Amino acid sequence: MAPAYLDNNATTRVDPQVVAALLPLFTESFGNASSTHDYGAAVAPALKAARQAVQALIGAEFDHEVIFTSGGTESDATAILSALETQAGRNEIVTSAVEHPAVLNLCQHLERTGRAKVHVIAVDEAGDLDLDAYQAALSDKTAVVSIMWANNETGKIFPIAELAALARGCGALFHSDAVQAAGKIALNVRDAGVDMLSLSGHKIHGPKGIGALYLKKGVKFSPLFRGGKQERGRRAGTENAPGVVGLGVAAKLALEADRARIAALRDRLQAGLLAAIPDARVNGSGARAPNTLNIAFACADSEAVLHKLDQAGIAASSGSACASGTMEPSHVLRAMKVPPLYLQGALRFSLSRETSDAEIDLVLEKLPAIVASVREKSPLWAEMLKKTA
Amino acid sequence: MAPAYLDNNATTRVDPQVVAALLPLFTESFGNASSTHDYGAAVAPALKAARQAVQALIGAEFDHEVIFTSGGTESDATAILSALETQAGRNEIVTSAVEHPAVLNLCQHLERTGRAKVHVIAVDEAGDLDLDAYQAALSDKTAVVSIMWANNETGKIFPIAELAALARGCGALFHSDAVQAAGKIALNVRDAGVDMLSLSGHKIHGPKGIGALYLKKGVKFSPLFRGGKQERGRRAGTENAPGVVGLGVAAKLALEADRARIAALRDRLQAGLLAAIPDARVNGSGARAPNTLNIAFACADSEAVLHKLDQAGIAASSGSACASGTMEPSHVLRAMKVPPLYLQGALRFSLSRETSDAEIDLVLEKLPAIVASVREKSPLWAEMLKKTA
Repeated sequence: MAPAYLDNNATTRVDPQVVAALLPLFTESFGNASSTHDYGAAVAPALKAARQAVQALIGAEFDHEVIFTSGGTESDATAILSALETQAGRNEIVTSAVEHPAVLNLCQHLERTGRAKVHVIAVDEAGDLDLDAYQAALSDKTAVVSIMWANNETGKIFPIAELAALARGCGALFHSDAVQAAGKIALNVRDAGVDMLSLSGHKIHGPKGIGALYLKKGVKFSPLFRGGKQERGRRAGTENAPGVVGLGVAAKLALEADRARIAALRDRLQAGLLAAIPDARVNGSGARAPNTLNIAFACADSEAVLHKLDQAGIAASSGSACASGTMEPSHVLRAMKVPPLYLQGALRFSLSRETSDAEIDLVLEKLPAIVASVREKSPLWAEMLKKTA
Repeated sequence: MAPAYLDNNATTRVDPQVVAALLPLFTESFGNASSTHDYGAAVAPALKAARQAVQALIGAEFDHEVIFTSGGTESDATAILSALETQAGRNEIVTSAVEHPAVLNLCQHLERTGRAKVHVIAVDEAGDLDLDAYQAALSDKTAVVSIMWANNETGKIFPIAELAALARGCGALFHSDAVQAAGKIALNVRDAGVDMLSLSGHKIHGPKGIGALYLKKGVKFSPLFRGGKQERGRRAGTENAPGVVGLGVAAKLALEADRARIAALRDRLQAGLLAAIPDARVNGSGARAPNTLNIAFACADSEAVLHKLDQAGIAASSGSACASGTMEPSHVLRAMKVPPLYLQGALRFSLSRETSDAEIDLVLEKLPAIVASVREKSPLWAEMLKKTA
C-alpha cells in the first residue's frame, strides 16, 4: 500500500488496540446482548464502557444520551426525521450549503416530497455561514437546525454554540453532524447546547458500520428503527457489540491524541506547498480542524494530479469520498465561490494521529513537479501565464 | 462459557473463517471503498465477491439486487417504507400476527401516525396463516405484503411462493423477512417470486451490524438513507467493508452446511424431551426450520427453568432476545393460542451447524429434573395433578 495515506477524512486505519478489543466479541463473548443467559450478560459491561467512552468524548451529561447507530448517515437521518415527527406545528429545516450529502440529500428529498420546507444557508468565500440569513430563516416553524461542526472537505469549524443558542431562542431543536469534528477538536455538547449530534467510528480509527447519535435527555424522539427494545427502545436491532466496543476504544484513544502535533504537520504541509507551488490557494480560512488541508492549484486538474499522486504512493482526494466518481466539482467549494480556475484543481489532504513526518515530506517532495507537469498540458494554464507575463 | 449454546436464533458465534477474512480490512485494506486511490480500489473486488455470495445464498438473478444494510431491522424498515413511498395510490400493508417486532412495531407506528392502514393476519394453533383472511385483506390498496419466511420463535415456515403470487395478483409488492430462513432452509427469491427480502449476518455465523436487502431488479425503490452514492445510490453511508466481507463468507459457509444433520439433532432433542417430560407440547407443526424447537412444559415457568439451565451450562431462551426482560408472554405463541398453562412454560432451543451431539445430550440429561423441580413449586401444577389423578 501507499507509503503516504493522507485521506483520513474518507476513512482511517482501524487502530490495532481497537481490533484487539473487539476481536473476542466475534468468537468468545459472542452472545446477544439482549439475551438473559450468561452469553448475553457477558456483553453488557463492555457496551456500557463503550457508551461511557463516547459520553466522555463529547462531554454528554449521561451515558444513556448516547445511542449507537450504524454510522454518521444513519445518525443524521434519525435526528432530522425524528425532529420533524416530534415537533408539532413545525415543518421547516434550516441547514447550510456545505453540509455532508447525508444531510443535504435527505433535506432535498423531504422538500421534494412535501414533508418539509428547507432553508439552505449560504457561506461566504472564507466558508463562514451567512449569519443574517441564518437568523432570518429561523422562526416558530423551524423544527430543526442541522449544521455540521466541522466541514469534511475544508475542515472549517462552525460556531456551534452561537448557532445553537439562536435556534433555541426560537424553540427549534439543534442537530450537528460532528463526524469530522468528534475526536479531532475539543467538543462539548453541554457547553455548546446542542440537542443531537452525529459521529462515526471509522473517521477516528474505529470500525466502519458503527456510529452514535447523541440525544440530549428530555428531547422528544421518534426512532427510525422500531422493533426490539435495544438502546432503550430508541434504536431497534441486535447490538453490534464488536462495533460498539471498537468505537468505545477509538473514542478513548481519540481523546488522548496529540492534536497539536497533527496541526503542526498540517501547517507544515500547507506552508511548504504554498511556498513551492505558484498560484495556489487554501480553501477555508479561520478556525479549521487540525487535520484538514484543502488546497487548490490553478489549472491543475485534480483528477490528473490525484492519479499521479497515487502512482507516487500518495493517497489524497479531491473532496468527499461519497461524491467520488461523479466528476462534479465539490458543492462545498462552489458554495464558497472558489474561482473557476481553482475549482477543478482542489485537493484535500487529511491527516490523522498516525501521520508521520515522512508522509508530509513525501508530498512536499512530489507534488510540485506533479502540479507542474499537469499544468503543462493545460491550455488554460498557458493562457493564464500569457496574461500574467 | 456454557458448554451448550442452544440460542442460535438470538445470535451465532462468528465463524473463525469469517473472522480471518474480515480482519485484513481493519488495518491493511482499510480504505474507503468509494475512494478513487489504491486504498479504495483494493476493497472493491472483496465487496463484489461478498455480494455474489449473498446472491448465491438467496438465488437472486443479479448481484446488484443485493443491497448491504446494517441488519435485519434496517432491511425490514427500508423495504416497507420504500413500498409505501413508491406505490402511488396504495397505503395498506398486509402482514402476519407472528412477524418479528421489526416489522410489527413499525407497522403499528405507521398506522398510529396515519401513514398506513395495516391488516394483521391471524394464524391458527399450528401456526399456519389464515389464508382466507389473507386473500380478503389484499386489494388494489395494498402497497406491500410483509410475511416472514420462517418464524424466529417456532421455526414455522410460511408458503412464501403461494403468498407472493396472491400479492402479485393484486399488484402489491411482496417482502419477506428471511432473517431466520436464509442459510437454514433452501430459499430462492426467483422461484418464490418475492420483490424484497431481508437477511442478517449474525444469524448465520457472520458479524453483527451487517445484513442485506434483496431488491428485485425493476422494483421501484426509495432509499431510507440518502447521501453518498454507495450501493448504487440505494443505501448511503461508507460501506462497512469488514462486515460485508464477513457476511459474504458466512453466506458461502451457510450454503455448504449439513442441514440434515442439524435437523436430526433437533428431532432427537424433541423426541427425547417429549419422551422424558410429561405434559409437554411442541409449538408449531408442519414445515419448520431444521434448527428450531419451541417446546412448552405445562406449569413450568420458563424464567425459572432458563435460570436453572443457565446454571447447568445450557443457554436457551423463552423466545426472541429482542423481547427478553419484558416478561410478557410471546406474541407469537399467543397468536397461536397456546393454552395458558403452557404459555409461560415455553422454551426455544435453536441449533446451528456448530451444535454437537454432546450439547443435545446435556439438555436431555438436565432438563427433565429441572422441569420437575420447577413444577414442584407450582400451585398450578399441584392442581393439574389433582385433576388428572
